Amino acid sequence: MILLGSTGSIGVNTLLIAKKFSLNIDVLVAGKNIDLLNQQIKEFDPRVVVIADELDIHKVNHKNVEAGNEAILRAIESSECELVVNALVGFLGLAPTLKAIECNKQVALANKESLVAGGEFVDVNKIQPIDSEHFGLWYLLQENKKHKKMVITASGGAFRNWDLNKLKNATLADALKHPNWSMGQKITIDSATMTNKLFELLEARWLFGKGVYDAVIETNSLIHALIEFEDGSTTAHFANASMQLPIAHALKQNMNEKILPNVDLLKIGSLEFKQINSDRYAIWEIKEDILKNPHRGVVINAANEVAIEKFVANKISFLDISKEVIQAYKKFDVKAKNISDIFEIDKEVRKWSKQL
Amino acid sequence: MILLGSTGSIGVNTLLIAKKFSLNIDVLVAGKNIDLLNQQIKEFDPRVVVIADELDIHKVNHKNVEAGNEAILRAIESSECELVVNALVGFLGLAPTLKAIECNKQVALANKESLVAGGEFVDVNKIQPIDSEHFGLWYLLQENKKHKKMVITASGGAFRNWDLNKLKNATLADALKHPNWSMGQKITIDSATMTNKLFELLEARWLFGKGVYDAVIETNSLIHALIEFEDGSTTAHFANASMQLPIAHALKQNMNEKILPNVDLLKIGSLEFKQINSDRYAIWEIKEDILKNPHRGVVINAANEVAIEKFVANKISFLDISKEVIQAYKKFDVKAKNISDIFEIDKEVRKWSKQL
Repeated sequence: MILLGSTGSIGVNTLLIAKKFSLNIDVLVAGKNIDLLNQQIKEFDPRVVVIADELDIHKVNHKNVEAGNEAILRAIESSECELVVNALVGFLGLAPTLKAIECNKQVALANKESLVAGGEFVDVNKIQPIDSEHFGLWYLLQENKKHKKMVITASGGAFRNWDLNKLKNATLADALKHPNWSMGQKITIDSATMTNKLFELLEARWLFGKGVYDAVIETNSLIHALIEFEDGSTTAHFANASMQLPIAHALKQNMNEKILPNVDLLKIGSLEFKQINSDRYAIWEIKEDILKNPHRGVVINAANEVAIEKFVANKISFLDISKEVIQAYKKFDVKAKNISDIFEIDKEVRKWSKQL
Repeated sequence: MILLGSTGSIGVNTLLIAKKFSLNIDVLVAGKNIDLLNQQIKEFDPRVVVIADELDIHKVNHKNVEAGNEAILRAIESSECELVVNALVGFLGLAPTLKAIECNKQVALANKESLVAGGEFVDVNKIQPIDSEHFGLWYLLQENKKHKKMVITASGGAFRNWDLNKLKNATLADALKHPNWSMGQKITIDSATMTNKLFELLEARWLFGKGVYDAVIETNSLIHALIEFEDGSTTAHFANASMQLPIAHALKQNMNEKILPNVDLLKIGSLEFKQINSDRYAIWEIKEDILKNPHRGVVINAANEVAIEKFVANKISFLDISKEVIQAYKKFDVKAKNISDIFEIDKEVRKWSKQL
């Protein structure tokens, strides 16, 4: 397979599963963590390696190393593998997703921005989502049973129990304290603002089509998805929080091997559900509107990436992130005609957002 | 259809669903509630009516009324209907189940004693269970996914929060205070002793075959069943507590109509899981053993019916019910060779239990 983003948490788990299933790694794509990349090269012996920065090439223990986004696309094109695992972070993951589909490859997709920004122009038949929520929905779908609502769950992020009045002083360090697990910086901030869940609703909308989508907070992060069926039945997918489960299913069809221990409900004792409201999570204000207009995902994604950069650079406050995203959403009421438009809109929104 | 037990809560709900789906009622079988039966006759105009007691025949507003167990079997035999809904209570429901299958009819089965006592000799391909737990398991099963454990839930019954020391003084009135809903007398007592859940595990064992079965207490009675899959996924079936949902599916294949409102998790707020232990529920002591030897269900069913009669007649205490059932279970280590043996064993155990 081709693995984009091999040194992040999804990448590392993907390699664990690849090893379990004895799958060949043809291409490894990583960012700045060259030490870990070198370990992975030693273990998995890829044909090609691509990294982010040309200046790091000499540090990589491989004879076939390239750098930059164009090199990623060339590596996909040159590979005979049928599967691309895309665990890149941010909008830059979209072009590789499109390239993989163009080359008729399957995409195991952890890069949520591919669908959030470009969902309208992505052939979802080629996509298997690597995300507990979409995996959970997929697991629960049943052919003969008519569903009426798909629900995903949220942990509530770092500030779920904070006094609302203190949120304005929240620091980067505060935002990175995820209550239930450890992930990369961007997604942890997106989790604190609830933007991550809004993105997942948009992804679900593209993956599963028109319908009713919603999210609730489940504080233990053991239920990942629920489907409400027409008859009055509701089914839920429980699993211990590990990306290995969706990854294993993405890497192998009809996977029936043991990946995780099952959730022990008696040990947990209780589960708690809470509403997501816009007092705490300002971005939730635009949820209904954007679910009706999912093509506008490109706008909030671009504005969000810029706002997070500013927050990380200490230029804006935590609450400003969602404020700026909503401002951009109101400003840019646009509809792309094709995938090139998506890249244009993305650029335009970023430019505007940077000058805010 | 042929409806056995039309005036109980399952029977009444079955008629509501039959009306919704415009299904014809060919035979009504009821017990002592002649007033309600007469209303049902007026509304559904059955061809044949059967009641329990010959002395009540003159009260029934129908020209074709018979009485007694043999009359039930004749009514099944004489009907052209393909579906029998068996909502009789106790061991006397077994013979009609067998007769219906012998006549090549489908059985929508709420009479759990049919499987508990005679499961080994009942063709389960002809059975659709009317019970939230088995319906939930059936709903969750998926062809391509390998399951490793099936779990049903229990409310915990009337005494789930009682001081253990006070249980010895529990009265019939106490035992009938079910925490979550109202059902008939026998099943409510079985719920208080947890014998009802043991019976449902045995039913599940016959319906779904060899495997691992267990039960947990879920105090809100909103989750009815869970399946643990091999990969580490667990799925759960949630529904508001109403028998109309399993009944509707039993009466109509591929049913996708609205029967109930879906559970509102945000209104519920939280769910609580507790272990079933034999300190509070003495019958749980024999759970593992009987699940390995499900053919011995006939013994505990007979002993349980007798013990409940004694408890209702104020001849033994609440705690004596399970004590006597366990005594009988230890005394009668028998295996029926055929269905006649089942009836013989049932008789023998009853005789012994009465003299205890």
